[in-house]
Formats: sequence, structure tokens, C-alpha cells
Amino acid sequence: MGFEPSDGLRETLERIREFVDEELIPLEPRLLNEGFLAVEPELAAKREKVRALGLWAPFLPQKLGGMGMRLMDFAYVSEALGRTPIGHYAFHCQAPDVGNMELLHEHGSPEQQERFLHPLARGEVRSCFAMTEPAHAGSNPVWLGTTARSDGDDYVIDGHKWFTTAADGAAFTIVMAVTDPDAEPHARASQILVPLDAPGFSLVRNVSVMGHPGGGWASHAEVRFDGVRVPKTNRIGPEGGGFMLAQARLGPGRIHHAMRWMGVCDRVFDLMCRRAASREQAPGAVLGTKQLVQAMIAESRAEIDSTRLFVLHTAEQIDRHGPFGAKNEISLIKFHAAGVLQRVIDRALQVHGALGMTDDTPIAFWYREERAARIYDGPDEVHKISVAKRILRDYGVHR
Amino acid sequence: MGFEPSDGLRETLERIREFVDEELIPLEPRLLNEGFLAVEPELAAKREKVRALGLWAPFLPQKLGGMGMRLMDFAYVSEALGRTPIGHYAFHCQAPDVGNMELLHEHGSPEQQERFLHPLARGEVRSCFAMTEPAHAGSNPVWLGTTARSDGDDYVIDGHKWFTTAADGAAFTIVMAVTDPDAEPHARASQILVPLDAPGFSLVRNVSVMGHPGGGWASHAEVRFDGVRVPKTNRIGPEGGGFMLAQARLGPGRIHHAMRWMGVCDRVFDLMCRRAASREQAPGAVLGTKQLVQAMIAESRAEIDSTRLFVLHTAEQIDRHGPFGAKNEISLIKFHAAGVLQRVIDRALQVHGALGMTDDTPIAFWYREERAARIYDGPDEVHKISVAKRILRDYGVHR
Amino acid sequence: MGFEPSDGLRETLERIREFVDEELIPLEPRLLNEGFLAVEPELAAKREKVRALGLWAPFLPQKLGGMGMRLMDFAYVSEALGRTPIGHYAFHCQAPDVGNMELLHEHGSPEQQERFLHPLARGEVRSCFAMTEPAHAGSNPVWLGTTARSDGDDYVIDGHKWFTTAADGAAFTIVMAVTDPDAEPHARASQILVPLDAPGFSLVRNVSVMGHPGGGWASHAEVRFDGVRVPKTNRIGPEGGGFMLAQARLGPGRIHHAMRWMGVCDRVFDLMCRRAASREQAPGAVLGTKQLVQAMIAESRAEIDSTRLFVLHTAEQIDRHGPFGAKNEISLIKFHAAGVLQRVIDRALQVHGALGMTDDTPIAFWYREERAARIYDGPDEVHKISVAKRILRDYGVHR
Amino acid sequence: MGFEPSDGLRETLERIREFVDEELIPLEPRLLNEGFLAVEPELAAKREKVRALGLWAPFLPQKLGGMGMRLMDFAYVSEALGRTPIGHYAFHCQAPDVGNMELLHEHGSPEQQERFLHPLARGEVRSCFAMTEPAHAGSNPVWLGTTARSDGDDYVIDGHKWFTTAADGAAFTIVMAVTDPDAEPHARASQILVPLDAPGFSLVRNVSVMGHPGGGWASHAEVRFDGVRVPKTNRIGPEGGGFMLAQARLGPGRIHHAMRWMGVCDRVFDLMCRRAASREQAPGAVLGTKQLVQAMIAESRAEIDSTRLFVLHTAEQIDRHGPFGAKNEISLIKFHAAGVLQRVIDRALQVHGALGMTDDTPIAFWYREERAARIYDGPDEVHKISVAKRILRDYGVHR
Repeated sequence: MGFEPSDGLRETLERIREFVDEELIPLEPRLLNEGFLAVEPELAAKREKVRALGLWAPFLPQKLGGMGMRLMDFAYVSEALGRTPIGHYAFHCQAPDVGNMELLHEHGSPEQQERFLHPLARGEVRSCFAMTEPAHAGSNPVWLGTTARSDGDDYVIDGHKWFTTAADGAAFTIVMAVTDPDAEPHARASQILVPLDAPGFSLVRNVSVMGHPGGGWASHAEVRFDGVRVPKTNRIGPEGGGFMLAQARLGPGRIHHAMRWMGVCDRVFDLMCRRAASREQAPGAVLGTKQLVQAMIAESRAEIDSTRLFVLHTAEQIDRHGPFGAKNEISLIKFHAAGVLQRVIDRALQVHGALGMTDDTPIAFWYREERAARIYDGPDEVHKISVAKRILRDYGVHR
Repeated sequence: MGFEPSDGLRETLERIREFVDEELIPLEPRLLNEGFLAVEPELAAKREKVRALGLWAPFLPQKLGGMGMRLMDFAYVSEALGRTPIGHYAFHCQAPDVGNMELLHEHGSPEQQERFLHPLARGEVRSCFAMTEPAHAGSNPVWLGTTARSDGDDYVIDGHKWFTTAADGAAFTIVMAVTDPDAEPHARASQILVPLDAPGFSLVRNVSVMGHPGGGWASHAEVRFDGVRVPKTNRIGPEGGGFMLAQARLGPGRIHHAMRWMGVCDRVFDLMCRRAASREQAPGAVLGTKQLVQAMIAESRAEIDSTRLFVLHTAEQIDRHGPFGAKNEISLIKFHAAGVLQRVIDRALQVHGALGMTDDTPIAFWYREERAARIYDGPDEVHKISVAKRILRDYGVHR
Repeated sequence: MGFEPSDGLRETLERIREFVDEELIPLEPRLLNEGFLAVEPELAAKREKVRALGLWAPFLPQKLGGMGMRLMDFAYVSEALGRTPIGHYAFHCQAPDVGNMELLHEHGSPEQQERFLHPLARGEVRSCFAMTEPAHAGSNPVWLGTTARSDGDDYVIDGHKWFTTAADGAAFTIVMAVTDPDAEPHARASQILVPLDAPGFSLVRNVSVMGHPGGGWASHAEVRFDGVRVPKTNRIGPEGGGFMLAQARLGPGRIHHAMRWMGVCDRVFDLMCRRAASREQAPGAVLGTKQLVQAMIAESRAEIDSTRLFVLHTAEQIDRHGPFGAKNEISLIKFHAAGVLQRVIDRALQVHGALGMTDDTPIAFWYREERAARIYDGPDEVHKISVAKRILRDYGVHR
Repeated sequence: MGFEPSDGLRETLERIREFVDEELIPLEPRLLNEGFLAVEPELAAKREKVRALGLWAPFLPQKLGGMGMRLMDFAYVSEALGRTPIGHYAFHCQAPDVGNMELLHEHGSPEQQERFLHPLARGEVRSCFAMTEPAHAGSNPVWLGTTARSDGDDYVIDGHKWFTTAADGAAFTIVMAVTDPDAEPHARASQILVPLDAPGFSLVRNVSVMGHPGGGWASHAEVRFDGVRVPKTNRIGPEGGGFMLAQARLGPGRIHHAMRWMGVCDRVFDLMCRRAASREQAPGAVLGTKQLVQAMIAESRAEIDSTRLFVLHTAEQIDRHGPFGAKNEISLIKFHAAGVLQRVIDRALQVHGALGMTDDTPIAFWYREERAARIYDGPDEVHKISVAKRILRDYGVHR
């Protein structure tokens, strides 16, 4: 009854939580003040430790070196890791690699798995996913400018992408490109594997996002494909199946994100309470004795608890009925959880006062980075519209 | 996994839902336009039908004529009944009788049960609960002006109450009165049974609430106790135990209310969608094709679904750990669910336009009556403060 | 500099305010508990007093017996009168009569003025305005089902209207009816004067709104026109000019309403502060010492003050540039001020606790009646869309 | 009538606006991607241009080289300059120098003016203001840890401050320090001038704020005073007058900020509309045709317009009655305008989608930097409480 982890999972979560607290959170000050590249070497060592502890890539099948968790269980893990910005990376379940691995595991050919999935699963290389385009609205996923023209046994790819997260230093990307412009909209594009050393590929820049171009895994690149030639065997799944694959990816990916957000909420809620309990507004009178601070704490608790149950419920629905059977829930948690995340971060920042603006806590980091939660994977507005249309279909509205 | 009713309960809910749709909702137009007293006779017949169907008083033990449901199961029933303003009344689980029956069942003496509980359980009489006072803030439940002075084997009760719901026509009340003004605050008051024909009791008026004094069960009385004498054996539980009993009552009562609110949400959401699907804003263009209406639908769905899970989770916690083990959740759902209720009603009303202002749908009724949801059983503000204080206690803040 | 009433106006406002406080507010308890009809006779006497004081119909030209105020000055008066639900009625500037008088004064023929305007201006009769239809969305003012068929020198009117405010007891209505269904949408309808004793007119019912059908001026009727015949000379303005006249009416009408709302805000803000200052939450600790109550007061003050300036600014723009030159502002204050109104009422109600739900203060009255403020004269959503479209036109968006 | 700039001012504003558009906005891409220090040399040239145009330091008396504007007129200028993050700096009215100049001009001794004010007014040096302390809540301005011990004719200053904006490269600071710990709270502190080359002063670090330590004027330093000795003649105003001076400074400073925020709103509103008008969501369908985008535009317009009038009204009140006569308004605009600012920025960012997260527009800069608007000069919560207390004082509540 209810959503509670099994005893075995509970113990695993305990170990993960401990690792996050003792090994990762201590790296945060340097991460926040010096950037990801400054802590990358230390993180590499932490990743080896994680592997040694048997906690590597929890969502990945055991034969690929992971823990073989189902979505529901990984949801809890994602929450536990979300408490620090480097949790998922340390446990090798960071976006966009995690989505790429899922995709290749389920839809990759044996050759693709051998060449692209296995080194990625082992953590020897990184990957990226090139979908968003500066010239086309991400809110309309069937409208793309990037094309993959058939030329004998090859595709020749031309296009301009950005927010190709983690392209900097990646070995390969999966690119979404139009393979048949004359097909019906949802069957126009395919997903194709492209090694980043392929002639014609260029990383234009790491886009400066919220004040920083970032670097390595922690970056969002603008990239170009100028006549990049790859064999057709690099296509994942059938021609024209790109949108379908993207949708299938989004369901579990939404759970990963939303439970990561719950982890962020858990952490900033804790920081907010610590601050409220320790910061004196006057001698002897801590902030936590003020009603306006108390209200922020209570409202946050209610929003987090109800939303967390909703995300877990959605994970369970996906486990039972597949991502297409839980379409509405997947859209609903997208905007609902993102809104809760932003409000909780905002309150925690406010309770910290000037300190909340600094990089002495991770709150300001999440305040700016997670503003994107209401945009990526389709802006809130798009999800609201699409879920309402599906609901109204049952009432006979068909447009 | 998750919160799902058992197959048996599911079937019961189906029957209840059907009864609500076919027998009760058709009474709404008269209820809304002519008031409760106008439909009371017909409702009496419906109540007999409910009894004949074996659906009487679902929360009451079977030996008292009920269905013996645990809280979690009754939560679903409360939701199903909440879809119409007269659902709980028809199934004999209406406030305040339901709380009085629970109280007398768990804490009443055999004599009290014989004299007060049994006729009430059978539906032969109605009862009320006199706690709120016009001169004292309901947000401070330990501060009361009503006293029960000891005089030999009797109490002599003096006081002024209001919002004594359903006093009009009731056989008895339970009154909260100070029995020991010198005890520590939480041990000052006791709960005492008072037949309404006792000399000195007077019903001053049915308070006009949101435009209507109402009548019968659907009324909120101002009452006076002027030297009302009752035997001490009318006291429920130990002397000074009034606050404790009130708190114990509130936990399950909160679930009853909150799930009833979810039933209201379910109904007004359905009405909103029907309206969106049928009302043309221009020839051929129904409201449901407009983004601003779609957003109201999507946001309502997300709020309802997440909140409903939170209430069910709280019910489960109470079933497991008792009301005192789920104190935080009980406070959190109070204000959180009440807020969702109000927003969903507000959106449904807006989508109905001018029709939403009329009594041609139940939306306007709930809009005005359920405004009280943010006030009764302790205003939102009080719950926010108290839950925050409990949370901060774990961080070392003790005031 | 700024928006400040002239010294003369200031003195008039002082007298009005005094009259409201001393003559009208004392009538509120009966109004709220017994309804408009119960206080109508006393109000008739108050109206005579107002006339004797030279404060009758402030917006009406002096030759018609009014004070001849320009819109900006009347805005202040509307605010002062808005502090009680019967202020405008007592000073003979109540909707819908006020709009009808403005319309007839500016666009009525001499005969129409003689027959309809003059008795109305003297307060001998009441009138109504039949525009909204149950079968057509009020948000689309050019789509109507009511027709006025030309038949020689007459129109023959057929149609079904509701929310014909104050039809109960009125002498005549102005009806919006399609005179040329083949014209372009904005030129299809005309406004036509119809005496309510005309054969074929029927008042179906006073619609029950928020629990009450009301009566007399304080009612909203459902009416039918079944072959009602009136001479074409009853048409106001040119044929097909109905929409244009309705628009012209809306601009100043919006100011009347919005400043009336500011008057409501002023009153409920005052009630909220009084309650905060007097209601003890514990012995010696009034509600006003609680931060959550303080925040409600401060947020209300800021919202009221800024919105009031915005409404005054709009009034000034209309005085200067006419209603069509201030279209954006007129739309903006509609939804902005209505939202502020609702939030301020909601907070005042909450601070009053259970008392706020009762009819012992006017707050509950406004809570339910003024919910309509977000609906009448076009729902908020329609104004948001239309103002945004006008703004975006300057950026080259033309649909 | 209303708040409209005089013709002369209007022409000045036109020139300023043009300068901002043609000279400053083109510097933004480098500012946003490379930081303030990268554009400082070019900005120095722009400042000379501004001086040559006779637009230098608009608020400063003409004898000091400024334009001698009263507060109301400077409010408009602040709005015009707020459209770019470097507007105030270019026109030499940037915080904290502007406040320091006002302070020294009104309260500085002739020697202080000669030594500190004049070079600052000429723009030869920069200054800072050391008030906020990491160990004491900024929301309680009378509680400070920094002390200035009397030692003969000198003060010896010890303390720890942060958010000493623009200390990096400044010539001197004004420090708020306790000169008499035994005085009543509001008379304990004094404001004292300290050259930054004084022995014992150290700049610990530029605090990393929202991802960046910044540099030069665009930085917020943590600083220490370890036995810093300055002559008592460096004290501004009377001993114990520090709090009073700080309050006097805040009034006009609040107008500077709030009108700067209105300038930010003006710019991001324009960017939002441009984006809505140009970004296609599907071929031929720009974002601006979507209702959810239209609603964001309309709501922003209403919030900006009403708030702007409220700020101008407050400026006028200060000009008339002084900052202490407009205390309530000054508190009200603080939190009200900051909230509007944040919501408008948030909507503009959302309409920009992924682009909004980047530094290709100034929106993301303001999103993170102006989060502080709800914190600096006293967090919103403090202003709400204090204004409510003042309001309730008129109702007899005195604590």
C-alpha cells in the first residue's frame, strides 16, 4: 500500500544518500565557485568508488554493468542523487548519457550497441543528443531544419543545433534529422548516430547560459553539421521513427528529471530549515520563529510531499502501462513538478537573504540552472495544452 | 503498490457513484433553488433506499448498523459522495453527526451510547457540536468562554457559541466547555452531552451565512447556554480531556473533509470540461479550443491528482500510526487541499461565465459554501504555523 | 501633478462619504439579512434626501437634474459610493440605469429623451439593458440570437436574454438585437427601446444567482421577446450601430465599475484592519500582531493603491482622448482591478474567520456578488487576449 | 494632471533614450558574455560622451557638475537608464556612488565634501558603502557587529562586512559602525568615511554571486576592518545618527531602484513582444498568436503600468513631504515593484524558451541579478511587516 521502497531498495538508498553526503557534497564549494572542470578529476575518482561499491549506473541492465533497476526504483535513486548537482554524474546516470544508453539498449542494433553503447555504459566516453535548433521552436518537435539526405548507403547530414548538452568532449551524438520531408509530420525524422570526429561536424561554441559557457559535461553547445556523412546503419530504429523514439525516451526521462527535482527540493528545504533555525534576526530570535518564514516552510512541505507522490504514481503507471499509457501523467508532472521546484528554490533563497544570492550554498546554482526545468523537454505551456486536448477528447472535442 | 481500492471496495464505490448520479444529483436543482428543507422529505426516502441497499453509514461498525469501513476505505466513499452537496447526508455520514458518532463509539460510556449514539446511528435523530464561540478565535482552540461549573453531581453550563452546525432540529449537542480554568491550557475543557430540550439552552438564530440562514441540517446556529444543568455522567471521557478528544476527532475528520473536497473537485472538473466541450464561443468553436481554458483544465487536473494522492497517503498514515502519528500530514492536507479546492471551483466557475454565477449548476453553491474550507477546523494560517513549528523542532527551534 | 481631486470636489466627496457612513451603512444589516426589497422603502427616502442635498445623479448634466461631472470627477464619487452595496442606487447612478441615461443623453432622439430619459433621470422609473443571451457566449459580443425584423415602420423582436439586470419592476429595456444578419459582424445589431408592457415581452424568472433570485433592482432576469413590436423610432442611433454604442458605453462604464471596486476595497480593507486590531487570538494578542495577517494588510494596500492610480489614469485618458483612444487601458483595468478586488475581499474574509462567512458584515456579500466582476462586460480572458493583440499589432502581428 | 514629464524633461529623456539605444545597448553582448571589466574601457569613453552632452550625473546639483534634477524628474531618467544594465554607470548615477554623493552633499562637512565628494562627483574615483554583515541579518538594520571605538580624536574600527558593492577598485567607503552600544537601538551607529588604503582594511574576496565573483564596479566584496583608525572628523553627521542617515538615504534610493526596475520591465517587455512577434511555433504561426503568450503580455502590461504610476506617485510624495512623510509608500513600492519586476522577467524568459536561458539577451542577466531586488534594502517580508504595523497603529495596535 502506498509508495514505499522495498527493504532492499531502502538499504541501497541509504548507502547512496551516505555517499552523496560524505563524498559529493564536500565537492560543492569548488564546483560552485570554480566550475565543473575544476572538480572533474576528483569526480572521476568518485565514479570509480561508486563502481567499486556496486552502485554504478543503477538503471542499466546488470549485463551492461548496471544495477538493473526498474523505473520505479530508479525514481527513488534519482531523488537521492538530486540532492547535489553532481549526484547523477557520479553514479553514471547523468543526462543526456542516461537517455542515450536507454535508447541504444532498447533500440540499437548489435553493432551500434557494441560500438556506441558498451564504451558509454562503462563510462569510457561521453555522448550527447542533438535535437533543439536555434531556428525552430523546441515546443514543436516535428518541425526541424536539420536534414539527413540519402546518398547510397549513407546519410549526408546538414543542420544547425544548440543546447546539445555535454557535446564538449563527447565521443558521439545522436542527431534528430529529417529523412523524409514529405512524410506525415510525425514520420519525417530519424535518430542517427554521429561520431563527433566526423568531417563536417563542428562545435561552434559552448553557449553562455545564465552567465557561463561552462565546459565538459556541464555545457550546452551550439553545433553544426555541414555535409556530415555517416552510413545508414547508424540510424537507430526504422526510418521516420525519430519522433516515436523521442517520445518513448521522454516518459522515463521525465521521471528521472522530476525525481531529481524532488531531490533538489529535499536539499533546499533542508537548507531553508537549517537557516531558519540558526539565523538570528535579532539576538535570540531566529528566523524560524517568524510566521512568514514558517509559512514558506509549511507551503513548501505540502507542495513537495504531494508532488512527490504524484511523480511516484506516474512512475508506477509507466512501469505498468508503458510511457504511452501514462501520457497524461507524464505531461502533468512535467509542468506541475517544475513549478513546485521553482517555488521551493525561490523560498529557500529568500530565507537565506543575501547569502542566498551567493555561491556559498547551491541554492543560487539551482535557482538559475533549474529555471530551464520549465522549458526543456517542452515548455510548460505545451504540456498544458496537450494534456487538456487529450482530456477534452473524451468529451468529444477533436481539435 | 500505490493507492488503489480493493476489488470489493471498487464495486461498492461503483454502486455509490451510481446512486449519487441517478438518485441524488437529480435533486440538486431544487436544493440549489429552494434550499435544503425543500428536499428534506425526498432525501428521507433516499436515505431509506441507501439503508435498504446496505450502504448505510459506511464508517460505522456493523454492529451499529454501518459498513465497518476503515478510514482509508471510507476516504474513497467520502470522495464519491462529495460529488453532490447531499451525498454524505443521504448515506448518513454527514458532519457533524459522523464525528459525534465516532466520538461516542470510541469514548462514550455504555449509557451514553445507549441513549445518544444508538438513535443517532439509526438516523432517528440528528446532533450537533458546539465548539466555536463568537467572542473567541477559533484558531486558538484552548481559549474558551463557555464554562461547565461543577455543582454536586451536575455541571451547570454557561456560554455563547455559534457555527453550531445543524443545531436546528437536532436532539442533542456535544458542547466544549471549560471545567477547570486553572488547569494547564490543554486540560481545561471537557466535552459534555446536552439534550437540546434542556432548560437554559436556546437557539438564538440560524446565522445567515453567505446570504442564507438555511434550515434543518443545513444551518449554522448561534446558541446560548444559560445555566444549563446536566449530570456529570454526560461528560465524554475524563474531565479535562476535551481538547484531546477534539484533536483525535480532527484527524479522521480532516480525511472525511479533504476527500469530500476531492469529490467536489471531481464533479466541478467534469462540469468544466463538459462546458468547455459544448459552449461555443463562436459558431463551431467551443471554449475548449482556447488555450486559456485548456490551461485551466490542465492545471486543475495536476492539482487534483497530486493532492488526492496526498490525502490518501495521509489516510493510510492515520490507519497505520493513528492521528497523532500523522499530525504533520493532517495539517498539511488541511490547507493544501482547501487551496486546491478553491482554485478548481474558481476556474470551473470562470469557464461557465454568467452561468457559473447562477444556481443552475452546483458550482456557485460550492464557491460560497466551501470558502469556509480555508477557515473551519482551524484556518490555513494556523495549520501552516503549527506544522512549521513541528518541523523546525527537529532543527532545534523550540518556540 | 498626480491625481488629486480639486478642492471643490474634495468637499463634495466629504459630504458623500458622510452620507454613506451615516445614512446608508446603517441599512446594511437589513439589506444583507433580508434582501433589497426589505430596505427599498427606506432607500426611497434616502434618495429624496440625496436629491435635497443637491447630490443627485452626479454624472448627469445639470439640465437633467444631475451634477454634470466629467468622468474623472465621477470616478472619485463612484469610489466613495462603492463603500456600500447601496451607494450608487441611493445617489441614482446605479447600473444599468446610469449607462442607459448616458446612452440616451448622447445618442437618443429628442422624442426618446422626452419619453424615456427624462422620467428615468428624475428617478420616477427604472430601466434595464438586455444584451447577454443564455445560448450565446457573452465573450463574443457580435454573435447574438435575438433579431429585430423590419416590418414597415416597426421592428418585430424575437429573442431570449438573461442577466437583464433589474428588469424586475423596470419600465423599459434597451435591447440589443440583430437588424441585419448579412452585414459585417460589427454592424449587424442595433439597440432598441422596448417598454416592458409591450405585448410579447415576458420576464421568465429572476435567475437565482449565488443562492438568491433577488428582487426589484437587485435581480437578474431571464426574459423573452416573442414577436414584440416597436416602432423603428425606438432604435437608438443608426441601424447597425448597436455594437458601436455598446463599446462607447463600456469605456466610462468600466471606470464606474472599477472605481466602485476601489470603494469596495477601501471598505473591506478598513474592516480587515479593524478586525485585525480588535480580535484577540489569545488574551491580549490581537490578530494584527501576527505576521501572516500583517502581510495580507500590506499586500492589499499595495495592490489597492497602485490599481487605483491606474484606474484614475485611465479615466483621465478617456476624458482626454475618448474611450477609443484609451482602449488598452480600459481592457487592462478590467481584469487587473477585478483580480485585485477579489484578492482583497478574500483576504478580508479570511481575517474575519467564521464571521467573514456570515452576513454580519458585507464582506460575504461582496465575495459572492463580485465574483461576477471577472465575468461581466467580457471575461478577463477576453480582455487579456484583445489587449495583447492590439499591443502585438505594433510589432507587426496582425491576427 | 497625472504624472507626465514636462516638455523640457521629455526632450532630455528622448536624448537619454537615444544614447542608451545607440551607444550602450550595443555593448551588451560583450558585457553579458565577457563581464564588466571587458567593457569598462569603452564605458569610460561613453561616460566622457555623456559628460560632453551635458547629461552627467542628472541628480547632482549643477554646481557639482550635475543636472540638478529633483527626485521626480530623476525618476524618469532612472527608468530610461534602467533599460540596460550599464545605463546608470554610464550616466554616473550608479549605486552605491549615487547614494554616497547624495549623502555627502546633504550631510557632509565642507572638508568631507572637498576631499571625498568632489572627486567622486567628477567621476575620478569610485566609492562603496559597507553596511551588510554576514553575521547579522540585514533585515534588522539596528543590529550590527562592527564597532567604531572612540580613541581620542580617532575612531578605531573593527568589523566584518559583505555585499560591500563595488569595493573592488573604490577609493573609499562609508561604513556603518556602532559608536555607542549602550544608546537606544536606533542611536547606536554612525556612518564614517574610510579610505580603502587605510591600514587594517582588507578586501577578503569578491563574493561569488549567482555564479560570478564579478570585478570592479560590478562586484560585491567581503571586507574586514581590523583596527582601522580614522579621525572623528570622518564621521558624517552627528554621532549615533547612522541609522537616521541610512533611512533618509533609502527613500530616494528606493525610487532610483524602483524606476530602474521599471526600465528593466520596459526593456524585457519589449523583448518579449519582439520574440512573440517573430518566433514561429509552426510555419507562419508566431508565438504571439497563442493565447498563453498573449496572457503573459497583457498581465505584464497591466502590472507594469499600474506599478509605474505607484512609483511615480511615491516620488511625488517624497518631493512634497520628504522621505519620512512617504514612509508607507516607500515600503509598499519596495516589495510590490520588486515582485512585478520578477514576474515580468520570468514571463519574458519563458517566451524566449531556450534562448531566454542564454546570455544572447539581457533577460537571463536580470533574472539572476535582480532576484536580489526582493532582498536588498530590506527583504520584502520586513517591509510588509513594517508597513502593516504603521497602518495598524492608526487602528490602535501598538506593537
